Amino acid sequence: MTAAVIRPDVRRRDSVATKARILAAAVEVFTEFGYSQAGLRDISARAGVASSLPVRYFGTKAALFEAALIEILRANSVFTWRKQDFGKTMTRLIRERSNVTITATLMLALADPESREVAVRVWEEHMIAPLVEWLGPPDAHGRAAMLFGLMSGLTFQVHGLAEGAISAPSERWAARTLQALVDGDAVDA
Amino acid sequence: MTAAVIRPDVRRRDSVATKARILAAAVEVFTEFGYSQAGLRDISARAGVASSLPVRYFGTKAALFEAALIEILRANSVFTWRKQDFGKTMTRLIRERSNVTITATLMLALADPESREVAVRVWEEHMIAPLVEWLGPPDAHGRAAMLFGLMSGLTFQVHGLAEGAISAPSERWAARTLQALVDGDAVDA
Repeated sequence: MTAAVIRPDVRRRDSVATKARILAAAVEVFTEFGYSQAGLRDISARAGVASSLPVRYFGTKAALFEAALIEILRANSVFTWRKQDFGKTMTRLIRERSNVTITATLMLALADPESREVAVRVWEEHMIAPLVEWLGPPDAHGRAAMLFGLMSGLTFQVHGLAEGAISAPSERWAARTLQALVDGDAVDA
Repeated sequence: MTAAVIRPDVRRRDSVATKARILAAAVEVFTEFGYSQAGLRDISARAGVASSLPVRYFGTKAALFEAALIEILRANSVFTWRKQDFGKTMTRLIRERSNVTITATLMLALADPESREVAVRVWEEHMIAPLVEWLGPPDAHGRAAMLFGLMSGLTFQVHGLAEGAISAPSERWAARTLQALVDGDAVDA
């Protein structure tokens, strides 16, 4: 019999792939069920790995949630966009459901004190801080907050409650209003 | 010993008071924990009534949730406001947390298929339909959707994530933007 000799670089590659699979499964499960209802067992089952592995790779459920939230934000970054297209591009993404995951995950995170603490911190560091820098003066913090409020509210409205419907005039209004916030001529700072 | 003889009108008064107490407790518990995490036992305990009474008075958990949601919307109705004050009044209410309950309850309701079905129906019948009538043309449906999206998004932003902070220029922007939607000169319908 030949013992299976696994070389270190192969093992390392497997380990990176396993970690990525757990993270992808965590994104799905936290988004679908919310923090308190999502179990580490659901995540390992979805990833197709042993139930001990999420904790071995990420430590705690809260730490895995933090990694999942950062992954969702990273995958939906807007800071490489051209500023002059922001309003139209964001409105199209809202219509196409592209930011439903991040909005739903953040909204559900507020229901549990543990995930709320993580959500507020990640959102401040990974969403608001880069958005403030990208926007520039005047009142970049205020404009970032209004932008984020409008984007998440429209997503909640269109996909949460109105089941995907948005009228053409509404879409044009949303694009203009988001663009004016980015351009900075919406505020009397 | 005298048997306690309870007259029918006293019993009826007690029954109305008990039902109101269960409803008030349901509003609190559903808002705090979300639909799937809220138990009928939590609600009867909060109301200080026997654990069998929520079902006796309301039928099912979903029916009690529906009654609680309608109660929250009724308590937060905006349709008696003067239109010309809407933007400022709503922005002040958002700053003062007055509409946190309704926003949080609706957002959490989306996490469970049963409560989602109730939330979408109640919100359409008791929020969007009267708002559409109150607003009038042009594109009343679209403006109602944008108004509701902006209000809920700002509430989520200010009280969910930013822990109560809103800058003075942001507040003025929000008041102007909401008012323009109510006045109907925001859309190119």
